[in-house]
This record gives sequence, C-alpha cells and structure tokens, in this order.
Amino acid sequence: MKKVTFKFDNAPDVETYANEGEKLLDVAKKANVVIDAPCSGNASCGKCIVKIVGGTVESSITRHFTESEFRKGFRLACNSKIIEDVVVSVPDIASAFKNRMKISDLSSEEELKIFRNTQDRIAATGLKFENDFKILDLELNVPSLDDTMPDNERLSRAVAKETGCDKIQISYNIMRKLPKVLRENDFHVKVLVSNEDEHIIVNDVIPPLKWLYVAGLAVDIGTTTVSAVLFDMISGDFLARGAMGNGQIRYGADVINRIIEASKEGGSKKLKDAVLRETINPLIREMCSSAGISRDFIYRMCVAGNTTMNHLFAGIYSEPIRMEPYIPEFYQTERLRAGDVGVAINPDAEIIMCPNIGSYVGGDITAGVLANCMWNNPEMTLFVDLGTNGEIVFGNSDFLMSCACSAGPAFEGGDISCGMRAMDGAIESITIDEKTLEPKYSVIGEPGEKPVGICGSGIIDIISELFRVGAINPKGKFIREGKRIRHDEDGMGSYVVAFQEESGTIKDVELNEVDIDNFIRAKGAIFSGIRTLLSSLDFDVDMIDKLMVAGGIGSGINMENAINIGMFPKIPLEKYEYIGNSSLSGAYTALFSNEAEEKVYEIGKSMTYIELSTTPGYMDEFVAACFLPHTDASLFQ
Amino acid sequence: MKKVTFKFDNAPDVETYANEGEKLLDVAKKANVVIDAPCSGNASCGKCIVKIVGGTVESSITRHFTESEFRKGFRLACNSKIIEDVVVSVPDIASAFKNRMKISDLSSEEELKIFRNTQDRIAATGLKFENDFKILDLELNVPSLDDTMPDNERLSRAVAKETGCDKIQISYNIMRKLPKVLRENDFHVKVLVSNEDEHIIVNDVIPPLKWLYVAGLAVDIGTTTVSAVLFDMISGDFLARGAMGNGQIRYGADVINRIIEASKEGGSKKLKDAVLRETINPLIREMCSSAGISRDFIYRMCVAGNTTMNHLFAGIYSEPIRMEPYIPEFYQTERLRAGDVGVAINPDAEIIMCPNIGSYVGGDITAGVLANCMWNNPEMTLFVDLGTNGEIVFGNSDFLMSCACSAGPAFEGGDISCGMRAMDGAIESITIDEKTLEPKYSVIGEPGEKPVGICGSGIIDIISELFRVGAINPKGKFIREGKRIRHDEDGMGSYVVAFQEESGTIKDVELNEVDIDNFIRAKGAIFSGIRTLLSSLDFDVDMIDKLMVAGGIGSGINMENAINIGMFPKIPLEKYEYIGNSSLSGAYTALFSNEAEEKVYEIGKSMTYIELSTTPGYMDEFVAACFLPHTDASLFQ
Repeated sequence: MKKVTFKFDNAPDVETYANEGEKLLDVAKKANVVIDAPCSGNASCGKCIVKIVGGTVESSITRHFTESEFRKGFRLACNSKIIEDVVVSVPDIASAFKNRMKISDLSSEEELKIFRNTQDRIAATGLKFENDFKILDLELNVPSLDDTMPDNERLSRAVAKETGCDKIQISYNIMRKLPKVLRENDFHVKVLVSNEDEHIIVNDVIPPLKWLYVAGLAVDIGTTTVSAVLFDMISGDFLARGAMGNGQIRYGADVINRIIEASKEGGSKKLKDAVLRETINPLIREMCSSAGISRDFIYRMCVAGNTTMNHLFAGIYSEPIRMEPYIPEFYQTERLRAGDVGVAINPDAEIIMCPNIGSYVGGDITAGVLANCMWNNPEMTLFVDLGTNGEIVFGNSDFLMSCACSAGPAFEGGDISCGMRAMDGAIESITIDEKTLEPKYSVIGEPGEKPVGICGSGIIDIISELFRVGAINPKGKFIREGKRIRHDEDGMGSYVVAFQEESGTIKDVELNEVDIDNFIRAKGAIFSGIRTLLSSLDFDVDMIDKLMVAGGIGSGINMENAINIGMFPKIPLEKYEYIGNSSLSGAYTALFSNEAEEKVYEIGKSMTYIELSTTPGYMDEFVAACFLPHTDASLFQ
Repeated sequence: MKKVTFKFDNAPDVETYANEGEKLLDVAKKANVVIDAPCSGNASCGKCIVKIVGGTVESSITRHFTESEFRKGFRLACNSKIIEDVVVSVPDIASAFKNRMKISDLSSEEELKIFRNTQDRIAATGLKFENDFKILDLELNVPSLDDTMPDNERLSRAVAKETGCDKIQISYNIMRKLPKVLRENDFHVKVLVSNEDEHIIVNDVIPPLKWLYVAGLAVDIGTTTVSAVLFDMISGDFLARGAMGNGQIRYGADVINRIIEASKEGGSKKLKDAVLRETINPLIREMCSSAGISRDFIYRMCVAGNTTMNHLFAGIYSEPIRMEPYIPEFYQTERLRAGDVGVAINPDAEIIMCPNIGSYVGGDITAGVLANCMWNNPEMTLFVDLGTNGEIVFGNSDFLMSCACSAGPAFEGGDISCGMRAMDGAIESITIDEKTLEPKYSVIGEPGEKPVGICGSGIIDIISELFRVGAINPKGKFIREGKRIRHDEDGMGSYVVAFQEESGTIKDVELNEVDIDNFIRAKGAIFSGIRTLLSSLDFDVDMIDKLMVAGGIGSGINMENAINIGMFPKIPLEKYEYIGNSSLSGAYTALFSNEAEEKVYEIGKSMTYIELSTTPGYMDEFVAACFLPHTDASLFQ
C-alpha cells in the first residue's frame, strides 16, 4: 500500500492508503475527497486538475496542460496512477465547489424578485395559498378515577370534537411522547393536525406556551446542485434558504453515469447517501440552525427533481430508466415518510414528490410548469429548463407536451476545458473587438475578481462574438489569426480570453475548438429538441407567444447572443422571459398550497412526453442544428 | 475498580469491573448476567443465591441460609457488596431459567389438545376463520416504447383490475424491490395483498415460482414468560412454536417494579430492549429457522400482553399506569408497524394488539375472553387467569366485568424461598401422610429427577395437605411437631419436603411460615377479588355456571386442594375447566380471523373494569380471605 496525502488551501490534510496502480481519482473518491470530475474520469473535461507536490504518479500529458505546466507537477487525477507515496495539492476550484457555488436558492434580491413575480403569477390563476395544517389549542379533561380513558383516546376524542371528523390517526412517534407531554402540561396542549384521505392526522402535540413552528421544506434536487427553502407553512414566510453541490457529482456529471454507478453492487445506497446524508441532510441542519428551529418542526417536504434524481434520492433501483424502453419505478409516490427515506426532518413528515412524467422529464419540470402557469394561459408557451440537461415543454391551457435533450453539462461549464459553474471567478459576459479581437469581459465576484474560468452565459457570448467578428466559421473552427488565437501542434485552434498573468489561476483561460464543438452540440440539442417538439404538432416557431427560460444558467444569459448562435429560435426578444429556478418555486408552491399540490399532479397526468431518441427526424434535426447558427441559415434571418 | 468474575456450569466466564461498595446483583445486571431476582433485590425472596469461590464480599446471613451454608460461601447477590476482587459461581437454577423453563407454547400434546378444544369452541360461535390476505398471480404487460407506464402504476392497475378496488397502496419497501423483481421475472409475479380501511395494501411482490409463505406471528407477552406461535395465515397450520423467559425479569418480577425501572432515565429503551431485542426477536429468529422461512414472510403479528407489557413492548411511557388514577397511553392501537417498533419481521407488517381495558387488565385478558367464548355463552362464567398477577372476568353473552388482583408472583414460585416455576426439578404435586407427616411427591422431568424446588401447584398441595393433617392452623402456623417440621432460632417453623441429600440442590427443599403466609396472601387476593366482583353485581358463587382457569400455573393444579385452601370458591368440581394459555390461543385467533379481530376489539370496548384498590369493601374481603380456608369457614362447607 502507498500513502496518499491530500492537501487543501483551507482544510486539514487527508491521509489515506492506495494500491499500486490505482487511479488517483478513485483514491480520492474512496477517501471522500471531492475532486470535480464531470466527465466521470475519462480525461476529457480536464476538471480534476491537481498538483503533485511530493513523490510522483504515472501520468501523461494531455491537451489540458502545457509541457511547462506538466513539469510543474500539474496532473489530471483521473489520468494518474499511484506508483509510490505521494502528496497531492487539491486546488480550491476543484475541491471547494460545494461551499462556494453561486446557485439559485432565492438568496439574492434579483432571485427573490423573480420568485415574487412567480408567486403573483400563480396567485392570479386563482389557486388558493392555503394548506391543511391547523393548530388546535386543546384543554383535555384531566383523568380521574371516574374518567380513566387512555391518553390516545382522550386526545382523539378532543380532536374529533374540534374538527368534526371522527377518523383520527396518531402515529407511533406521537403515541410515545403523548403521556409525558399531557401530564407535564396538565392536559392542556397545542396539537398540530392535517388531513390525509378522510383522516385527521395528529402531527404533533406540544406544550401550550411553546411556539409551534409548522415548517415546510421545499427542495430542488438538481443533478449538479441542490437548493432549498425552509418556510412557515402558516404564513408562507421564508425561514431559511440554502444550496449545496449535489454530493453525487463524484459519481459522474450526468444522470446516465449516476444510474450506472447506482446499478453496481451497493451503488444505490452509495448514491442515496451522497445526495441525502452528504448533501440534503447537512443542508437541512444548516437551515434549521440559521432559522433557530428544531428539525422536528419540519412536518412536510416537497421534492422537485428530475426522474433519476427522484429515484436516487429515494434509493430506488434506477437502471430501467436508462435502458430501452426507459421505465421509471414511479411517476407519483404515495405516503412516503421522511423516517422511511432517511431525511433528517420530523420522521412522520410526508414527502411530496412533484410527479415525473417520463424517464427524462421529471418533477423538476412539473414543478416548473406549475410555477410558470402555462397550464392556465391560452398563449402558446415554450418553456426551456437549462440545467445539467435541457428539458422543453410546449403548450398552453389546453395541452402540454414535453421532451428532454441530452444537452449535457456544457451550459454549466462541463465538457468545456476552462468551463465552470456561475460562481466567483467565472467570466459571465464578454464582447470582442471586431478589429483587434481583444475581449472585454465581466467576472462574477467582488470588483477586481480575477477570471479563473468561463460559465455558460460567458461561453454563449464568446462563441456568438467570435462568430460575429468572423473569427470562427459555422462549424466553430478558427478562420482568423491574432495574438489571442493560437493553434497547438495538432492544429487545434483556441481563443485566449485571459492570459495566465491576468487570470486568477495557473493557466490561460481560453476556449478551444473542442470546447466550441461541445457547446455547439449542446445548443444544437436544445434547438433541435424545440424544432422536433413543434413539428410533431405541426407548429412553427412563429406561433410561439412566449418563451420562458429557467434554470441554473442564470439571469446573466444574453438572449440575443443565444439566438445568434442558434440556441433559441429567432423570435422577438420581448417574448423571452427568464424565470429563475422554477423547480424550487414550484416545489414551494405545491407544498404551501393544497390546491397547487393537486394541480401539479394534474399537470403530471395531463402532460405528454416524447422520447426524442426514438422520434424519427430528431437525429437529422440535431445534425442540422450543429452549426452556427444552423445549416438552414434562413431560420435566423 | 475491583474485578468480578462470574462462573457458570455450562457457559464461559464473564469478567467485569465494579466500584467498591457496589451491590453484586447490580454488577451482574450491568454485565448482562441473568440472576433471578423476582423481589427486585430486597433480600426477601432468596432467589439470587450465588456462591463466592474466590475473594470475599460484604454480606450478612439471612433466613435463606444456615450458618454452615454461609460458611461455605453462599450469599444473596442482592445482599452482597463488592469490597475486593471476587469470583462468583452462579448456580444453574438462577442463571439458566431462560432456556429451561417449561412454559406454555402449545408444544406438548396436552397443550395442543387444549388449544384444539379452544379453536372448536370458537368455531362453534360462528366466527369465520378467514382473513383478508390474498395471493394474486399477475402477468403484467411488458413495457415497451408504446407503453411506458411506470412500475408502481403498472402494478397498481393490475391489482385494481383483479380486486375491483382502485385504491392501491404500495409501501416504500415494495417500491424499492419492485423494479428488479418485475424485470427478473418478465413482469410475471405473485403479489400478496390485504385490506386496510378502503385500501388494498400490497404486502409483497415475489417471483411466480417462489413459494410464498404468508406467516402470522401470535405472541403472548407475559410478565414472566413470552410464548409464541408462527403459523400459516392461509391454512392456519402451525409452522413453529416457541417460548422464552421475558428478559425484563432482571428488572423485577412484577409489573410495578418494571414500570419504576422504565420510568428512570433511559429506562424505557432498556425495558423495551429486554423484551424485544433480547427475547421476542431471538425467539422469532429461532422459530423462523426451525420453520425454514425468512422473517420477511411474517406479514402480520398479534400481541396479547397485559397493559404494562404492551406499553413496555412498544417503548411507551408507562409511569401513569401505576400512579393514581392509573391511566394507560392506549387501550387500542392503530396502524402500528413492525419496522417502527423494531420487531424483527417484515418491516411493513402490521402489529395488532389485543386491546387493554384498564391499567391492570390488558390484551392478555381480552384475548383470553375471545378464546374462552364467554361472550357467546348465556351461562354465567367466571374466568381466572393466573399469571404473574391474577386477573378475573365475570359475565356472559350479555355483560363482561373484570378486575385485577395484585396476587404477586407466588403462583409461579416467586416470593417463596424454595419456589420455582413449573420446570424440571419442580415438585408439582404432593400428598402428606396424616400420621408420619412423610410426603409423597412427583417431580417434573425425567423419571428419577431430583427435586430442587416447588412450583405453584406443588405449593397448593403442600399447604392443603399440611392443613388437612392438622400440621398448620388457619393462619398457616405450625401446630404439630415431627422429623420434617422444624423451627429456627427466631421460632419460624418450616416443613422439609426433601432433605438436601434427597434433593438436586445445595439445601433442603422446604416451605416455611413466611412462604405460607405469602401464598395465603396471594390466594386471598384471588378469592377476595372474585368475591368483590360478584358482590358488586349482587351475585353469589352459587350462580357461577362455569369457572375457567387459564395461565402458567399449569394443568397440574389440583382444583380440590385449591378449594380446600380457599383459593377458589367451593362449587362443584365439574364446573371447573383448565383452558391453558388462553392469551396465546386468543392472539392466534384474532390474527387468523378478521372477524375474531373485530370481536376482540368489541370485547375490549364492552368489558367493564373495576379498580379493586379503590373499591370499598375490597380490603376487608382481602383480610378475611387471608386464612385457611377463610375467616368465614361456612363459605367452604
């Protein structure tokens, strides 16, 4: 066994042992050292960069390094084998993404504004913002030798009298706390009740003078990030917000790699632990501590995730989702309890899941549709959710039709050598001078923040600008020369946005032809998805009244540039609207409002799902869309 | 810290450490060494006898030893303090009761006969021996690109079609196994369903060719012993039977001491663990292994225990049961699941509890009444269940009235210096020669088994015989002399049934005046309970048409002698019937038959409970009954 020591900027060393020949990335996984590896370790994304500061590993130079960088000790963890004791420095950008990500958890003023707009839009449909939780103040008769009714019956009768319903259900956990809480408070208690089927459920019994928080937890389980709001189920007010990278990231960037990992021996538990025990539960702890409430006050939870995330979260075998004919275990669940699944909230809390409607269109999308209100609008709306994958819904108050595009993680910086998520240090917008090809860019973070990579909106801008100034051709190949354009020994061109000395990282921040190609395929997937969905209905882009864009790509996206590169159809800019994290907004609404919960199930049942991979014509559309802006340029004039 | 080593006849040593001054009995408890201590360690029962074979303890001589025995190293563990390192030999009789007890688990031919009689009696009432479990053989449509319904919906629809009910409920555990079991069997599966409210519950989904055992587990949780039957819920046939001492015994012999222990910090878990993890779960493992089935095949369980046992089993705070006004948390429970409580059967299995009807008349008695069918009989029936306590029910098909007597553990050998439970080595019946006072006795066990103690039926016989031959007066004091009658220095008389050299133990097997006094108080409690119950209804013993006796005292009881000492009222012997472990028979029936389950709830609701301790006249009745046979001898002429 060889000793492997991982060093971090802001955390204590991690020491572990590895067999000779083991991959450094695998060693890190086993030691729970998070190294970003969206390509699952096949040396294509270049994200798992580390620096060897003691000992050596067996590795080779890749397109992600210059020879001088290689000499300095930089390696890809996925491309390095252990041959002796080694000390590995893990750079901040790779290891700390969990804590530093800028993710949509409704924390910023801008997000809050979008969230409030969404709530206004939903309220305008007439859905009532009301739920079935009720707090009763009950003074029970104190037992005596003449009145020896047992505690549970005493409580049930009082609840029945107060609610007019005689089917009362008291859980095992409440049974266990009942005798003490009744006697410590002279049989005067506050009782939290709710409805299930025709029963009244007793959710809690507490002292009469204790403040009873009835908290709800809405969670958007994204493939890359998990975001959540904790709120008061009575007033609807936020108690805490939070977000964290999905701990499953180390098992692959996309759902397919996750399913493959989960289907291995013990994999289901591993993947469930990663998202639940390492991500959601710590997030809940943080939020509860910031709100100053016990986790037992969270009496209901709503989850909005894609079909795969929902299955992995619940620890349910997901292999059939990725194998033809692509069948999930569930669209909708029933009576799922937090205690069963292992969510660190009140163990009796019900977990509502926004329903899936197909193997690749899940609860995040039904929640998103609930939030965007297209189900209540006669206008033809196109809804595009750009997360780690891209999902598209088209329809109005009469019908809803959806599909998913394997766009891959490019919009979030995956599959792009200098790509990164929209966090501090990311170039988020850019213009390029037509003559000098010099860039002007803005970087997320404090003023003066140095660039370390490029996020989705930045990539759209760079490609759009390079195309506009004639630096690349419709296939994304460089056709101009300049100080910032260079070619490697294999002839691959790249554009340097920030030279190493201007940047906050160890190498130039650049975009190369492979990156551009990856991105073109991603935008092509979205555009061809939209086209295929519309043409299956004999619709044309002109008939789109509204285009709503949601997802982690962020409000920084320049819609005009996105049209210029052929990612979205050419329609008037005023028809576009960015609606933020509509999954989280929808989950919040479905949890807070019983009518909204019913509505999201109804949306799930009424929405049609098209499996693009088996739809004739889709591949042709996709190939045609893998140009700038499109092989049929007339579509963008 | 001092080292304490426990030595056993047939088990490896147990070594532990103790503080100076600690009680040896407490040290044993902490080290999980079982030493029988029914009096909870106040040096009154003399059961926790051990022999110090190395080092010394601080102790004093008690009435349980002669000086010579004391010199040999015999001590009461409860009366010994640690002062130095010590080696303690734990005699077999104290440590091994768990494995050697002869307890009613329907294993003997005689018990089986009684059980069959009970079932015949119940069948004669017209109750149907049928339950709601059904096995469906379902060939689901195999999914395709044109039929992408998720697994749970696919199953639900097929079940709905087969059963005609469209409210189908699939538990989390079934959700988790569904995708694999469907695909491994080409969507052809066996499905076990049952009913709950208006829903169909899916209990299991298994391969079509696998044998599906639908097993039910009926458990009688006695204060002293736990007995159980595992049976086939379709045919009703036994799969396995078993019994074990209740592991809570080390926390006290009676329910009051158990409640006190449970009410201490962490006590509830300790007592629950003792009966569940140390007793019931190992018993289930044994029975499953002998039946050759997995515990997951146990889909429903029925518990019959007294009110305290039911609470401690479920880990529910029981202190209010022993404090005026004596209020349990529950009479009846609802939707209790094995997984919640921690019973090692299918985690989704429902636990049915035969209902309690008062703080000291519990599910063991409602189960017993279900089994004895007095609810269907116009004849006036008196039902006496002699367990660790005594419970009495009087009534017929029109009414049922019950009470509990704090008879204590004397019938099972507790509070009697040479008393023991009805197991190998126990003297179970005896006659005494009127002239010579020489005894003739029979001992439980193989022919030639030497006596080590006296069980309940033996004690009844000895007292009855000593009284008949004029050796003791109505107060139980010795009034004759003889070789076998002796008095100690304080003048306390005793009768030696077997001298040490005839016995299989370390001292004479005898019955002394304190023992007789204890037993007289116990029989007095039963008789006065019967009298109080009857007189509250203005009934006389003559009006009893039938007297049914149940419980661990066993079929060995000589009813004539029991009348002679004034334990039971003097009615014609043919009116008596011994009905064995009616709690277990009742639990079996309530589990196997849905109608019987409803009936036992009905019995629970219709039965009236009288709290004797607060009933005027009871104390006078009790004092009057503490004579042989009674202060009012006319009652027994």
